[in-house]
Amino acid sequence: MDTKRIEALADGVFAIAMTLLVIEIHVPEVPAGSSLAAALLHLAPNVIAYAVSFVILGTLWVGHHAQFHFIKRVDRPLLWIDIHFLLFIAFLPFSTALLAQQYREPLAATVYGANLLGAGVFLYWHWWHATTGRRLVDPALQEPVVRTVKLRILGGHAVYASAVLLSWLNPYVGLALFAAMPLIYMIPGHVDRHMRG
Amino acid sequence: MDTKRIEALADGVFAIAMTLLVIEIHVPEVPAGSSLAAALLHLAPNVIAYAVSFVILGTLWVGHHAQFHFIKRVDRPLLWIDIHFLLFIAFLPFSTALLAQQYREPLAATVYGANLLGAGVFLYWHWWHATTGRRLVDPALQEPVVRTVKLRILGGHAVYASAVLLSWLNPYVGLALFAAMPLIYMIPGHVDRHMRG
Amino acid sequence: MDTKRIEALADGVFAIAMTLLVIEIHVPEVPAGSSLAAALLHLAPNVIAYAVSFVILGTLWVGHHAQFHFIKRVDRPLLWIDIHFLLFIAFLPFSTALLAQQYREPLAATVYGANLLGAGVFLYWHWWHATTGRRLVDPALQEPVVRTVKLRILGGHAVYASAVLLSWLNPYVGLALFAAMPLIYMIPGHVDRHMRG
Amino acid sequence: MDTKRIEALADGVFAIAMTLLVIEIHVPEVPAGSSLAAALLHLAPNVIAYAVSFVILGTLWVGHHAQFHFIKRVDRPLLWIDIHFLLFIAFLPFSTALLAQQYREPLAATVYGANLLGAGVFLYWHWWHATTGRRLVDPALQEPVVRTVKLRILGGHAVYASAVLLSWLNPYVGLALFAAMPLIYMIPGHVDRHMRG
Repeated sequence: MDTKRIEALADGVFAIAMTLLVIEIHVPEVPAGSSLAAALLHLAPNVIAYAVSFVILGTLWVGHHAQFHFIKRVDRPLLWIDIHFLLFIAFLPFSTALLAQQYREPLAATVYGANLLGAGVFLYWHWWHATTGRRLVDPALQEPVVRTVKLRILGGHAVYASAVLLSWLNPYVGLALFAAMPLIYMIPGHVDRHMRG
Repeated sequence: MDTKRIEALADGVFAIAMTLLVIEIHVPEVPAGSSLAAALLHLAPNVIAYAVSFVILGTLWVGHHAQFHFIKRVDRPLLWIDIHFLLFIAFLPFSTALLAQQYREPLAATVYGANLLGAGVFLYWHWWHATTGRRLVDPALQEPVVRTVKLRILGGHAVYASAVLLSWLNPYVGLALFAAMPLIYMIPGHVDRHMRG
Repeated sequence: MDTKRIEALADGVFAIAMTLLVIEIHVPEVPAGSSLAAALLHLAPNVIAYAVSFVILGTLWVGHHAQFHFIKRVDRPLLWIDIHFLLFIAFLPFSTALLAQQYREPLAATVYGANLLGAGVFLYWHWWHATTGRRLVDPALQEPVVRTVKLRILGGHAVYASAVLLSWLNPYVGLALFAAMPLIYMIPGHVDRHMRG
Repeated sequence: MDTKRIEALADGVFAIAMTLLVIEIHVPEVPAGSSLAAALLHLAPNVIAYAVSFVILGTLWVGHHAQFHFIKRVDRPLLWIDIHFLLFIAFLPFSTALLAQQYREPLAATVYGANLLGAGVFLYWHWWHATTGRRLVDPALQEPVVRTVKLRILGGHAVYASAVLLSWLNPYVGLALFAAMPLIYMIPGHVDRHMRG
């Protein structure tokens, strides 16, 4: 079995999850005598949560995409790891809406962080399953590449877990960390150099 | 006609049906003085129904995907069987929401099981149409592979039907059987060995 | 420019429109002391409208798909014809919900029929644009194939228009005609024989 | 890395954003004794906003599609530019619903225009990043093609900005300009001639 259709399913789920995020932002009713500007300002948490989740989904999509640069075939366990990974991806519109509506509650940040951690655990397992014994990748794939990808995913886990913990001390610090995370990933790293070299 | 576009349409419908499942889980309103944790606990049936339906859709997607490993071309009847199969797939977000909201009602489990059976019947017909007289598959396809795929699909039918019947005795037993079903499919079977061998 | 990406966009819009049809079917609230069965029976018009629209969308998808069997390249006008065709496809979830809710009103059937006619007009124009002077198809494409495809599309227009007119006499007759239409298309015709031959 | 998967993700987001536009048009409740025709007329701004946004999304999709006719490979920065471009695309269903509901408010037209400008800025940056030093395109790509694409995108920016400014003088003039914009793009231009020649 080749990797095309699972990539197509994943691209579909990512595209839909990203686009459904906006569905939870409702056009405000503006009663006569009240201002549209004020009503829109009220939506600021929703818009910020939309943008942060969109870019985090982008990060996870790039990570998933990069793995399939190396993975050459799929087996049934990999399909199931993928489907569970996508289960967490498709749940993010709910977690995002929860966070936007209850951003002062550490519990909302915890649900959001747990959702991302869930996706991250399956993303790690995906890579581990494909590369252990070079099961589904080129046998010549270098160990440093395998390790670098693992470290990048674990780094994401550490940030998500820290954001959850910090949100119990101060919700705004936790949120700031979620928002900052994609920035770390946008900086090109070792893997890119291996891909080009 | 080759199989690419019907596979693309199917991947699209599956990806959307899987992602739309979450739309029926609404962020709870938390009145002042009441706890977010309690409100979230109230959503437990919805979250469980989401996860079960997502994984069952994954099972059906893997089954559909595996058939196209063998099916080499499409004819007009196959397209129509596919479209009716997808009609049941796309209906599952409704059945799932119904089950989540009325999980104590055997009738809700019956609608849910009937929806899955409907999809299963067309999945069986799909395979039967493609393989009878080796109409749309490689003429050299071995009879044991054809039979094994048929048995796997019929096994699913038996589980769905049992879950419906049991839910009239005790709704929770029926639900447990729906939830257990994908586990049976995750265990690699004969077909995989044929694919690899 | 080749035809892959416009086919991908079209498959996406069709898959989403087909799947969004179900969103307009809401899980009924069942007040204590009242029966779930009665509440579900109330949804019958919605479920029928869902199935009819899903299969009609399937018909239009098959028609669009069959054209790209012959169309070998795209130009900018074809892209724009496609985008307007998809505009009518993506509008169908609204027309379907309207028809389901107001099925006794001829005006609802008229909106529904006009929506289908709009899609049909662009589907005809699509084929006309591609085949006139063999602009975007194989120069050796036989005139009978061109004409048969045109007649099939015009046949659809005639059925939609008749259903609208009949619904002003008796809404149920109009609805029956909409429901019967896909059956006509499921019978393999001349084009298939040309494709195989 | 080749361009296939980012094109697939983009096609998915476009297809979904285009189809979700219709979700904000709700079937009207028609109280007994009141007319369906009047209720439907009330939806005219929503239907017009749907059609205008659908065609504008089509314009942006064609623009993105045309860039990938020349872009031969992707690097990590291009992926991120794409993801931010898609962030604005996926937000358009909200801006469209806002504009439809508050079309007499210049602020609604401003949000709508800002959304389109945001997408346009990333579309420009996308082309600039790919073509500067012929980074991701054929080294032989002619400068006039590069410049023509830039001018087309900047022309779009100018129209969006003018529509926003005019809507503060008269909302209807601003709306008319948004509606007219796709017409400008449908006329085939220099780039097409280069593609064919």
